[in-house]
Amino acid sequence: MRREEKDLIGVREMREDVYWGIHTLRALENFPLTGLPLSVHPELVAALAAVKEAAALAHLDLGTLPEERARAVVAACREIRAGRLLDQFVVDVLQGGAGTSANMNANEVIANRALELLGHARGSYEHLHPHDDVNRSQSTNDVYPTAVKLALHSAAGHLLDGMTVLRNAFVERGGAFAKTVKLGRTQLQDAVPMTLGQEFDAFALTVRDDADFIRLAADSLLEVNLGGTAIGTGLNADDGFARLAVHHLRTISASPVRAARDLVESTQGVGGFLRLSGALRQFALRLSKMCNDLRLLASGPGAGLGEIRLPELQAGSSIMPGKVNPVMPEAVNQVCFDVVGADAAVSAAAQAGQLQLNAFEPLMAHHLLNSVNRLDAACRLLAARCVVGIEADEERLRGLVERSAGLATALNPVIGYQQATALARECRATGVPVRELAVREGVLPEDGVDLLLDPLRLARPR
Amino acid sequence: MRREEKDLIGVREMREDVYWGIHTLRALENFPLTGLPLSVHPELVAALAAVKEAAALAHLDLGTLPEERARAVVAACREIRAGRLLDQFVVDVLQGGAGTSANMNANEVIANRALELLGHARGSYEHLHPHDDVNRSQSTNDVYPTAVKLALHSAAGHLLDGMTVLRNAFVERGGAFAKTVKLGRTQLQDAVPMTLGQEFDAFALTVRDDADFIRLAADSLLEVNLGGTAIGTGLNADDGFARLAVHHLRTISASPVRAARDLVESTQGVGGFLRLSGALRQFALRLSKMCNDLRLLASGPGAGLGEIRLPELQAGSSIMPGKVNPVMPEAVNQVCFDVVGADAAVSAAAQAGQLQLNAFEPLMAHHLLNSVNRLDAACRLLAARCVVGIEADEERLRGLVERSAGLATALNPVIGYQQATALARECRATGVPVRELAVREGVLPEDGVDLLLDPLRLARPR
Amino acid sequence: MRREEKDLIGVREMREDVYWGIHTLRALENFPLTGLPLSVHPELVAALAAVKEAAALAHLDLGTLPEERARAVVAACREIRAGRLLDQFVVDVLQGGAGTSANMNANEVIANRALELLGHARGSYEHLHPHDDVNRSQSTNDVYPTAVKLALHSAAGHLLDGMTVLRNAFVERGGAFAKTVKLGRTQLQDAVPMTLGQEFDAFALTVRDDADFIRLAADSLLEVNLGGTAIGTGLNADDGFARLAVHHLRTISASPVRAARDLVESTQGVGGFLRLSGALRQFALRLSKMCNDLRLLASGPGAGLGEIRLPELQAGSSIMPGKVNPVMPEAVNQVCFDVVGADAAVSAAAQAGQLQLNAFEPLMAHHLLNSVNRLDAACRLLAARCVVGIEADEERLRGLVERSAGLATALNPVIGYQQATALARECRATGVPVRELAVREGVLPEDGVDLLLDPLRLARPR
Amino acid sequence: MRREEKDLIGVREMREDVYWGIHTLRALENFPLTGLPLSVHPELVAALAAVKEAAALAHLDLGTLPEERARAVVAACREIRAGRLLDQFVVDVLQGGAGTSANMNANEVIANRALELLGHARGSYEHLHPHDDVNRSQSTNDVYPTAVKLALHSAAGHLLDGMTVLRNAFVERGGAFAKTVKLGRTQLQDAVPMTLGQEFDAFALTVRDDADFIRLAADSLLEVNLGGTAIGTGLNADDGFARLAVHHLRTISASPVRAARDLVESTQGVGGFLRLSGALRQFALRLSKMCNDLRLLASGPGAGLGEIRLPELQAGSSIMPGKVNPVMPEAVNQVCFDVVGADAAVSAAAQAGQLQLNAFEPLMAHHLLNSVNRLDAACRLLAARCVVGIEADEERLRGLVERSAGLATALNPVIGYQQATALARECRATGVPVRELAVREGVLPEDGVDLLLDPLRLARPR
Repeated sequence: MRREEKDLIGVREMREDVYWGIHTLRALENFPLTGLPLSVHPELVAALAAVKEAAALAHLDLGTLPEERARAVVAACREIRAGRLLDQFVVDVLQGGAGTSANMNANEVIANRALELLGHARGSYEHLHPHDDVNRSQSTNDVYPTAVKLALHSAAGHLLDGMTVLRNAFVERGGAFAKTVKLGRTQLQDAVPMTLGQEFDAFALTVRDDADFIRLAADSLLEVNLGGTAIGTGLNADDGFARLAVHHLRTISASPVRAARDLVESTQGVGGFLRLSGALRQFALRLSKMCNDLRLLASGPGAGLGEIRLPELQAGSSIMPGKVNPVMPEAVNQVCFDVVGADAAVSAAAQAGQLQLNAFEPLMAHHLLNSVNRLDAACRLLAARCVVGIEADEERLRGLVERSAGLATALNPVIGYQQATALARECRATGVPVRELAVREGVLPEDGVDLLLDPLRLARPR
Repeated sequence: MRREEKDLIGVREMREDVYWGIHTLRALENFPLTGLPLSVHPELVAALAAVKEAAALAHLDLGTLPEERARAVVAACREIRAGRLLDQFVVDVLQGGAGTSANMNANEVIANRALELLGHARGSYEHLHPHDDVNRSQSTNDVYPTAVKLALHSAAGHLLDGMTVLRNAFVERGGAFAKTVKLGRTQLQDAVPMTLGQEFDAFALTVRDDADFIRLAADSLLEVNLGGTAIGTGLNADDGFARLAVHHLRTISASPVRAARDLVESTQGVGGFLRLSGALRQFALRLSKMCNDLRLLASGPGAGLGEIRLPELQAGSSIMPGKVNPVMPEAVNQVCFDVVGADAAVSAAAQAGQLQLNAFEPLMAHHLLNSVNRLDAACRLLAARCVVGIEADEERLRGLVERSAGLATALNPVIGYQQATALARECRATGVPVRELAVREGVLPEDGVDLLLDPLRLARPR
Repeated sequence: MRREEKDLIGVREMREDVYWGIHTLRALENFPLTGLPLSVHPELVAALAAVKEAAALAHLDLGTLPEERARAVVAACREIRAGRLLDQFVVDVLQGGAGTSANMNANEVIANRALELLGHARGSYEHLHPHDDVNRSQSTNDVYPTAVKLALHSAAGHLLDGMTVLRNAFVERGGAFAKTVKLGRTQLQDAVPMTLGQEFDAFALTVRDDADFIRLAADSLLEVNLGGTAIGTGLNADDGFARLAVHHLRTISASPVRAARDLVESTQGVGGFLRLSGALRQFALRLSKMCNDLRLLASGPGAGLGEIRLPELQAGSSIMPGKVNPVMPEAVNQVCFDVVGADAAVSAAAQAGQLQLNAFEPLMAHHLLNSVNRLDAACRLLAARCVVGIEADEERLRGLVERSAGLATALNPVIGYQQATALARECRATGVPVRELAVREGVLPEDGVDLLLDPLRLARPR
Repeated sequence: MRREEKDLIGVREMREDVYWGIHTLRALENFPLTGLPLSVHPELVAALAAVKEAAALAHLDLGTLPEERARAVVAACREIRAGRLLDQFVVDVLQGGAGTSANMNANEVIANRALELLGHARGSYEHLHPHDDVNRSQSTNDVYPTAVKLALHSAAGHLLDGMTVLRNAFVERGGAFAKTVKLGRTQLQDAVPMTLGQEFDAFALTVRDDADFIRLAADSLLEVNLGGTAIGTGLNADDGFARLAVHHLRTISASPVRAARDLVESTQGVGGFLRLSGALRQFALRLSKMCNDLRLLASGPGAGLGEIRLPELQAGSSIMPGKVNPVMPEAVNQVCFDVVGADAAVSAAAQAGQLQLNAFEPLMAHHLLNSVNRLDAACRLLAARCVVGIEADEERLRGLVERSAGLATALNPVIGYQQATALARECRATGVPVRELAVREGVLPEDGVDLLLDPLRLARPR
């Protein structure tokens, strides 16, 4: 048995086993673009349900929806937020229509599930209507961006946890390597001594800074335009709806959601999305640099820098016996490039908004959710499968410092730049360590030289 | 009953129902990054099988694999190319390791299926080995990029067909609107007359030009480095293997695959990927501009340009009764932004290659395959669901031309720039059409004016 | 008469009329890349002088430079900060060497000017040495990024003022248009009533938000790594130098400059540059959207939206008499694209840093300074030459609202969605305004309809 | 004494010492954005003069301009093409108006110089008019893009020469290092033997391939829309003008300039600009990779790969005695990032075109000319100041190969993968070379091993 549904274009038979309706069907037919349904973003589905629940609760307060209907909507939304019916969110992530199809997909699934809960057949919209009831006082243009922001805020929370995991891994290794001296490099050329711990501490701090930046961006997403309906003027929203809906959303999401200061600006502005995209990109660029460094420091084993060893995760080559590659940083590098690409897509879409709306929010939502979740996975995997198991080749590291002509830099204050330069050159030409040359030429007594050239002392910031 | 497999890290039990082995298992554990398995790209899976089949056939010719083994490998590959076992290609699209895991996934699935065909249990690699037999004379570094190129070449063929569909739709509409005069616009300001047909013909030509450009790029992908093994020197490939493998690949793919001129360069260069990415981006940018134009010309209905009507595909608003939106161009705009983002990811990855290899080809493969396939879908949907059904508001179009002060431009040669400017200004100030003013002021006899200001004549290129 | 100078490569004759020395000469010969000397960024030259002055004052406090030398350096730096000797900063903006050449150019010019002030000939470095004295306790790797940050912070201050000018212009027009009703548009389709004032107010708010974001980014630039020398460990800096130098820099710049928490991270991290670049890009993307809107609203005059008129700034066409184009928004659009490109360059450079240093800061400095200054000019020009003179076509705007089928939306709550839809359709089909239809069909008494459909009331957010 | 000029906005006094007129003055006042006048692109100024000369010659043929006037215009254009009056091209490179100001600047300078040649005072436009005569049958919309394309084609010719210089330098070094064996690396891990010559040969081939690609793009720029006037319909162009003007342009430029197949498409399409931008970006990304490789191979001297030595060009550090940095590749890396940024700006501008015109061509012209010229300089400098002077540390290179466990790969075919792996592991664990182990364990006679493990043999492609 099939049900029939009708929209402004005509009548269509609906499969009986689905909760969605004709508007969703149209979208399925119109947008077979990526093969990725909305359900690849469970956070977004849950957030749509949260917004619809908040709206129903507001109507309950206002008496603008019959209580039975409102309660059924709330119950359906809670099921969806708990993960049920996820497979009913089927419209393509790259849909046209500024999110209308995603909103209608939610309206239809919620209505039909609520109808079931009320003992009615799916499709008997005279008892509860996807549009008139579930969508009451709302427009796609306020519901959809509000839900996307909530979903991103929630996902960003996980990412921040993932970044903490990565930071802690760097901090732990930084501590373990606190006394492991090594030669610092600028422009890939040998420079002056530092510790491997300082190198890892710097990574940790970079992660922390970027986490702070992402947190700021995520917080700004809590400023929503719910209640603004079509263009931010709130036309056709019931009086009092906006305030109450935001209030309930705050409770449901357990986050300090707040109404935007100017709903017209908020409806068209996409500032929050851009801010998050920029913060994610910044982290991606810097995480990529860290992965580059890890791969560089681990290069070899014989013909590279060979300063650290990464854990072996899988056979590295289908041809070279025993080759092990830095596959985890490489995978993370690629996630970073992916995020850089996503940011380019988001910013192209952001610039393309026109007048009172940006019709390209579905693309932004898709890419931003991907980026947040992929960076989260990348941080945790990099920490667990790479950073925590990194070992230093302490002997090699110390040897490189001791043989380095760069040590002569430390003699500048004592013997002057001229003589230091001469020593550096002799060291480079002959391979005799600076320490030995300094002692041999009597520039200082042996113990004075040892103190002066102690790499750990030289690495200590003053 | 489970089987055990072993790699350089240790021994693992394998689920009995899978065709993949321990190397794939490691990759599954190492790279849970996107949730997207290799099988989202069936072209790539088929292309991997094609390369393995070509290799086995080469060994058959050379006698470097036992005939029974080689034939079993060939049979397994043919099944996979026919679409079987797709669900066995499970490693994440964003894997580290430069494609090693994809290659090993293929080696393992092919070996185990071949073992079955030979009547052996999966995992009994003493009879046929994923690495020693299926991967013989190969390295990930030549197999993987070769397969990616084949897959892209094949997908690009479909895209070119899709572009032809779109071009034909524009050409057909261009013909239908060949005599529909309208006002051309530069810098969004009213300019001089043209026909709507010229506007659609220009779209058609742009699509054709970009198709030519994409075809060139796709052709350059047929230059492969198969036979170069690890770094392009062909170390450990059996003598004669390279030439024969490429020969068989040409037959299998029915495409003029050819060996790269310099296998070392080809292994590290990623020029073909960049070229395709650039060509796709160019088309995306210009297709986006066309969609912008369609949306602009269809803006309104009352308060916009209102020159054309797009087919109604779905209800446009959850709040405004009867509103219909340009959802198909909007969806295509988003595909275009998506491609722009993919190109940014690809180019970041391309620049990051180091020395003899670019380790980030999995990211490039994923994004390029997405872009090609999404643009293909976008072209076909835009053609079928939008362009072919576009109608012109001929009355409005003609009216805008006739009331346009820009018509005065056409009087320049007869009455001079000064007097033409005066007429243009009077037209603008009073709203009286230029034609009427010209007749009224006796600048020309009525029929002379009609001829001179005939918009269709003015629109005709000379 | 010429002087000779010497570096590790050899001896060169120097032109007598220049203040720079052999290191600058080498850079001139090595990097003739853009034709743009450092002096195209006077803020950066001044900031380099400020850092050198702060260093000299620190040495004066510490007694680590002879007082006479230190005072001469200070005097030379003050002259440069006042704008003198700008033409002596000649190295190409795209130099290699991580800023070493810029730093040496500054050291040499300052030393030679200080020598003059002390009564010595230029080049008589035995009395005051560019390196040993002017650069004492410093490295390019702390001096250069510190100066770039100061320069950017200073330039960003001007930009923030420029943004205020633009915001005020939008606010002023927003006020003037507070009662000018118009039809809002979503997805370029007619939507519901709003005021033109709301449109301009939204622009103003966007500018304010982005100014807040840029201010945050600029403030983070005040965290400098001065005192860290080569890699952040402060090797070879005199004891106490770092703290004193930052202190003096704070005074000189009258900005709350502070030492970075981790000088190693700060030396390699480029987080501040990325943050600023992202903030500038965000503003560019949104400013571009505003310019797009202005051009769209001003399109016509006859065949476009024609809602507003931009001031006429120049003849718009070399062929069409009387055509006037939106040249100011177009110019600003291009500045925005320019900033988007600069951001892409900066982020490519940021990702390319390796280990303890990012060698590509000169590129970042150049592009960021360009972006800040160009956006500043764009804001002021857009405000003064376009926004303040914008006029509304009030009659047209009101007419479009009154004839809009969208008005039927407002009848939903009273006559129901069904009947409202019917009215909307009749309006669209016949061109008879919704108000007239509603009265004619007796859905409401005439004064009730007038109140209900009052556009200004409908535009008011509730 | 000053002259007065008048446009549709009003009357202005002009400075007597300038050749430009009131339209240029307006643009100067409207667009003080970058401080960069048109004259920073002499190729563009020359190309504008070439187009104007071709137009005048066409009118001479047609008799549509008085001979005296036409000849004076031609004479003035030839002077400008010879480099005179460059400083009169003063409008900002980032002007609004789609190039109108650049075109008018050219019209005015040419008119006033022609007037001088005719013995008239500047500004006496009754004798020869910037607009009616110099611009006759033309519009900015065909003149400007035609000139930009010519300028780019000409500049690209120089770039192709520069790329040949770089390629030859790589080829020469490739030859010199043809027998210098080294260890190839994949994923920064030691792989299998190759020669340094192969590495440089690959660079050379990459440059050649990208040159071919750029040449194709440059050739496509020779398809111009001259004669199409405002929107490509050729309105108001004299009959026969288009064909003759293109003919003369072909002669003047000595390049196979041709009319676009569809002038409407060509006027709006910007395909040629995008194609060139993409080709330049591709080369930039790959040139950047080569510079990365050079810096990596030259890293050290003690604690890096240390395989090659780059020529010393300048002192590398203001703090570390004797440090020499890879400044030339670093500068070129930055040029590459700059080109990547320019391409992002160009593609943003390309997507923003609307209807019959892209108003943002000035931005594209500026960035593309910069990119072409900077890449040209980069190629020549990299070749002359870096590549030709590169030396190999042959001893170190050979030692790394001989001590490499990767050599065991070559034993696979003889002793099997298992035993080869065991040898590789023992080599890695003990540091004893594979050759020695193989001999010691008697896997092969000594001379057999020597042949089998001869790195030069192993590096030879088969």
